[in-house]
Amino acid sequence: MTRYFLKLAYRGTAYHGWQIQENAHTVQAELNEKISTLLGESINVVGCGRTDTGVHAREFYAHFDVQEPLGWKPEDFVFKLNRFLPHDIAVYLLKPVPNDLHARFSATSRTYRYFIAREKDPFRRDLSMEFTGPLQIEAMQQAASYLKHYTDFTSFSKLHTQTATNNCKIEEAFWRVEPPYLIFTITADRFLRNMVRAIVGTLLEIGKGKMSPEDMKGVIEARNRGRAGFSAPAQGLFLEQVRYPYPL
Amino acid sequence: MTRYFLKLAYRGTAYHGWQIQENAHTVQAELNEKISTLLGESINVVGCGRTDTGVHAREFYAHFDVQEPLGWKPEDFVFKLNRFLPHDIAVYLLKPVPNDLHARFSATSRTYRYFIAREKDPFRRDLSMEFTGPLQIEAMQQAASYLKHYTDFTSFSKLHTQTATNNCKIEEAFWRVEPPYLIFTITADRFLRNMVRAIVGTLLEIGKGKMSPEDMKGVIEARNRGRAGFSAPAQGLFLEQVRYPYPL
Repeated sequence: MTRYFLKLAYRGTAYHGWQIQENAHTVQAELNEKISTLLGESINVVGCGRTDTGVHAREFYAHFDVQEPLGWKPEDFVFKLNRFLPHDIAVYLLKPVPNDLHARFSATSRTYRYFIAREKDPFRRDLSMEFTGPLQIEAMQQAASYLKHYTDFTSFSKLHTQTATNNCKIEEAFWRVEPPYLIFTITADRFLRNMVRAIVGTLLEIGKGKMSPEDMKGVIEARNRGRAGFSAPAQGLFLEQVRYPYPL
Repeated sequence: MTRYFLKLAYRGTAYHGWQIQENAHTVQAELNEKISTLLGESINVVGCGRTDTGVHAREFYAHFDVQEPLGWKPEDFVFKLNRFLPHDIAVYLLKPVPNDLHARFSATSRTYRYFIAREKDPFRRDLSMEFTGPLQIEAMQQAASYLKHYTDFTSFSKLHTQTATNNCKIEEAFWRVEPPYLIFTITADRFLRNMVRAIVGTLLEIGKGKMSPEDMKGVIEARNRGRAGFSAPAQGLFLEQVRYPYPL
């Protein structure tokens, strides 16, 4: 068996997220279909994580296994696959890897960015959330800095999700002003479903003055999704980077 | 009479350019309609130039005249107009100006940028031209540097266009690599119709090795559109900046 890693990017607007589902257009289904056609055998790609409907990935990794090493030059395979795939999915790299390198389980950290357009923006409408009202960015920055002091993020997890643990190790979480955008960057070893969007929604309520920065601590400590803010819309969220203990 | 300047931006994808035409969706028509509705009188905006079908403007100025100064606070007018306008046109500024400041005739220079995506890009498909093949960028840079030495750009003008003169004063013309884009920037006092796209198309042919950098001189000196290269697609072109001898 030979395992290959693919590095890709996708615009999530037209997809019901990454994960394959009955009767839904998903990125995984699109890749499975096009790679299977190209190789003439049934291929199932395994992604580095799930992204929700409408969420984008500027860097995403997936692996797939084949019995025999591919007869293709990697750059030829990438070129051909890009021709087969629709315009909103791009493949940048094909690389053979050790059999135990797993796109999801071997990833050591993931970075997400959330884009808030601070003025009407004709060019990135499906790639940001527009919010032009006043925001206390210092308060949002302070509240974000508390995230690193906690590990249990039940308050920001999707209700009724069954996961073994709601613990995440946050490496960094900060806002940066890059006109016309206000951008939130967060890196952790893992994320719960909907977690980044719930954190961004809560930080926005703090920015609007509906909660104080200190309230962030109470929200986290409550371990109760009802205490956090709204979930910021999917269109502003990008999976930006995924790291592995292996050169890709 | 009071004259107002508007600063705006638009994504050109859905429009038949700036200029109003029978039975066509244009940016000027959209603005005339929405401003007339807002002010309750028939308004005709005058733009800083024409852009072709599918060309974008990151900065565009237009003026309009009213009998009496508007009763609106500029920021309220801008806010309301943005609500009225579709998502692909954004207004950033309303400012009263001297009556003789003309959006088109007073502009002293215009800067265009052309975006070439050097890899498949899921995020800016309608905002760039994709070209992933090899390019000799040094040759393109050298050929671009000759543009400043000429003033008659008949070779890059639309055939059968009646303009008084085909003379333009080029201030700057250069390529810059900003991965994943290769970007051409050109500033001049004025541009002929289709000129930037014809220049980019010709420079691309030089980059592909079909012509030498020195051939650029012959193309310009021929004053013959047939000698230049193809016209690069509209979707990669942005009007980026327009300058006036008045603070806006």
